[in-house]
Amino acid sequence: MTLTPATDAFADTLSQQLPADTLRRVEPRFLEEPRGRWQGSSGWVALPRSTQDVATIVRHCAQSGTGLVPYGGGTGLVGGQIAPDGAPLLLSLERMTAVRAVFPEENALTVEAGAILADVHDAAEAVNRLFPLSLASQGSARIGGLLSTNAGGINTLRYGNARDLVLGLEAVLPDGEIWNGLKRLRKDNTGYDLRHLLIGAEGTLGVITAASLKLFPRPSATGTALLATPSPATALSLLARARDLLGDTISAFELIHRQGIDFLAETLPDIRRPWPAPPEWCVLIEIGTGPATDPTEALETLFASALEDGLSEDGLIAQSKQQSQDFWTIREQIPEANRRIGSISSHDIALPLSVIPEFIPEAHARLAEIDSYRINCFGHLGDGNLHFNVFPMPGRTRADHAHQRDAIKTCVHDLTHAMGGSVSAEHGIGRLKTDDMLRYGDPTKLAAMRAIKSALDPAGIMNPGAVLPD
Amino acid sequence: MTLTPATDAFADTLSQQLPADTLRRVEPRFLEEPRGRWQGSSGWVALPRSTQDVATIVRHCAQSGTGLVPYGGGTGLVGGQIAPDGAPLLLSLERMTAVRAVFPEENALTVEAGAILADVHDAAEAVNRLFPLSLASQGSARIGGLLSTNAGGINTLRYGNARDLVLGLEAVLPDGEIWNGLKRLRKDNTGYDLRHLLIGAEGTLGVITAASLKLFPRPSATGTALLATPSPATALSLLARARDLLGDTISAFELIHRQGIDFLAETLPDIRRPWPAPPEWCVLIEIGTGPATDPTEALETLFASALEDGLSEDGLIAQSKQQSQDFWTIREQIPEANRRIGSISSHDIALPLSVIPEFIPEAHARLAEIDSYRINCFGHLGDGNLHFNVFPMPGRTRADHAHQRDAIKTCVHDLTHAMGGSVSAEHGIGRLKTDDMLRYGDPTKLAAMRAIKSALDPAGIMNPGAVLPD
Repeated sequence: MTLTPATDAFADTLSQQLPADTLRRVEPRFLEEPRGRWQGSSGWVALPRSTQDVATIVRHCAQSGTGLVPYGGGTGLVGGQIAPDGAPLLLSLERMTAVRAVFPEENALTVEAGAILADVHDAAEAVNRLFPLSLASQGSARIGGLLSTNAGGINTLRYGNARDLVLGLEAVLPDGEIWNGLKRLRKDNTGYDLRHLLIGAEGTLGVITAASLKLFPRPSATGTALLATPSPATALSLLARARDLLGDTISAFELIHRQGIDFLAETLPDIRRPWPAPPEWCVLIEIGTGPATDPTEALETLFASALEDGLSEDGLIAQSKQQSQDFWTIREQIPEANRRIGSISSHDIALPLSVIPEFIPEAHARLAEIDSYRINCFGHLGDGNLHFNVFPMPGRTRADHAHQRDAIKTCVHDLTHAMGGSVSAEHGIGRLKTDDMLRYGDPTKLAAMRAIKSALDPAGIMNPGAVLPD
Repeated sequence: MTLTPATDAFADTLSQQLPADTLRRVEPRFLEEPRGRWQGSSGWVALPRSTQDVATIVRHCAQSGTGLVPYGGGTGLVGGQIAPDGAPLLLSLERMTAVRAVFPEENALTVEAGAILADVHDAAEAVNRLFPLSLASQGSARIGGLLSTNAGGINTLRYGNARDLVLGLEAVLPDGEIWNGLKRLRKDNTGYDLRHLLIGAEGTLGVITAASLKLFPRPSATGTALLATPSPATALSLLARARDLLGDTISAFELIHRQGIDFLAETLPDIRRPWPAPPEWCVLIEIGTGPATDPTEALETLFASALEDGLSEDGLIAQSKQQSQDFWTIREQIPEANRRIGSISSHDIALPLSVIPEFIPEAHARLAEIDSYRINCFGHLGDGNLHFNVFPMPGRTRADHAHQRDAIKTCVHDLTHAMGGSVSAEHGIGRLKTDDMLRYGDPTKLAAMRAIKSALDPAGIMNPGAVLPD
């Protein structure tokens, strides 16, 4: 399908249908992405102020066969927000940031797609509620992008992925029609679930313009523990033990490998490290409890039980907000340390929980057949989501291994797929992983995806090049 | 679109591609449905033993343009399982009942679509886990139908609807291709979510043949309370209070009106009633707690707090399994009592929680303009899901009001829609509510549904006449 670029003439015609200053020449900030892998093609960006404006823009693109790339906070890690060529129109939702309404008694709020996640947290907190989606980029990521990529993060164990937090959507479909689906219902069985189709479609089936989101009661108290554990297998037993003892209160269960703490020491030496000699594996556990339970006592009970059965040999339970924050800083700064070290290849994978103890040593062994590496394997163990990232040995650089990058990725992804896993757990497909979709995707699913895409976006204008392999 | 009936010649040709005794002449049990509203057209039923057989059947129907109606336990309440005319092929999954695998350490199991819900409960219980989907027909409803209709039931407040309990699906799409989507992953962002598209599509986009389902830890202990409350508004305040005090432990929060208890007294007098003179409104609360919490004490704390603030004036907390069962029998037998009284019109609606106190009196007032009725309003208040059912006054029959049935339904559904609600909360559309889809459905959503249906099922063979209005 050949698309028309968003030329000056196109911008001129479209501008006449929109309020002043809706279209601008693209600024450099829209052309970069966090991985530094792609550079966007310059041209025009639309900055609409209303859903009606979005509809006008999409309709015009559909009629003229012009590609359209929706843009949220620009924090995506798979290039879904960047169009390297073809000069499509960028559509930034950054002016549509209103919290339209808050319904504390319903545990719900309605917010526009351009709202920044941290602002949604604040809006929920203002009515003593919790919006639990939480991830490193929450100060800049916007709701529309977070939903379009079905973002994950640290609280999915308890509260689910982004899609699980959505009651209703408003969206502009690829023909420019507005879908008013902003219901605030916990049950609604009236036809196909368009909501879940748009969530995770990464802007290829329409533009999310607003969402009704689920809120939750804020826990009365939270507790944080950092427990050393001998192996990934014991980490999983510890997770099961924690579930038995602490039930639904566990909001995060993060696996950390010594390699990550060593990287912190190397690149961010000011960060307080909990152990002089870190254990090979540890888990960061966060719980949020109701008024009847003291979270510190609950974590102490867990630790005692884990010690007794050899699931942990050493542990720290935060005795203050500061200590809890210190533990979290370690986990949260590992990605930054990784960035400073410079990975050769990073992998955002998910596995069935029970195969993880087998996966990790097998992946190490297979990679060792290629070369020697430092491997930082960490992530959201409670969800089976590992960030399995491969780095050069000290004294070598990522450039030294550039020729091995594809082999490394294929090695990790082949094993992940063979063990029933996913090669994109929480980051999505974007432009980075379309080849993986071809290699690992179920052919029937791919055919269905193409049929749905053609049916809803026959001209192929929505985020061309993303998600669906050519 | 004109479909070919499943004639004897069709059955003969198809039989040659299948193991012996896969096709049979339809037995009467496949031609009836619980509401007694439709009678199926006779012809042939296929009873496949494997996913491969299902694929053969669907492919043959696609090639010959023969309609195909998937059939689970036959318990659907909106006629989705019945084809009144056109003599399509019925496809019963009743021979595909295997629990393929159980993964206790992953809190997951994989089961075929024909498995009966109660058997899945047992398979989960055998490994000390809980599969929480629970509804009146669980002794005969089958997993495929429950997922195709996105069933709700009594535990959705805590555990979600059927769609929230699914990790992966295996399905045969309308062209006869098998989608192998039986992943057991908590995070998987690799393309459009076909799973959520098939769930709730009521067999119009393919046949679910197996599913990987989420299991949960079994609560250490459960507690049940029946609390009288002055009004729907105080019932909602009581729900909020319960959430504050009991957190995520609340698995059911059911509203009961005196009318339902009076119907029980009238039709099922042997059922033990908790009060000599029942209150106008009461709520049935079920909680499931971890080892650290005594559920009876927790409910006593809630009741004391509710008493103090006038949210309840009288209450019973079950002191034994038997008492808990007695409370549940009241709730569970109300639909049977309704059936014996005979409703003029029943409504399965959902509303935003905060409008319910306004909805109920307004609906009563509007119906009073049509005639005098007895109204039994009950249901899953925690989910905003009401069963708002309209009955004749004593001495009159439903036949006396037959001419008012459409007006009653329109009155209730118009008000529901105007207040942001859904005219099908948990039962689905089937053949009963396709007109409602036209009247209340969002036109953009309807157009997208039609486009998706045409793309995936161009011959229109899958469950013709269900969900999508002509």
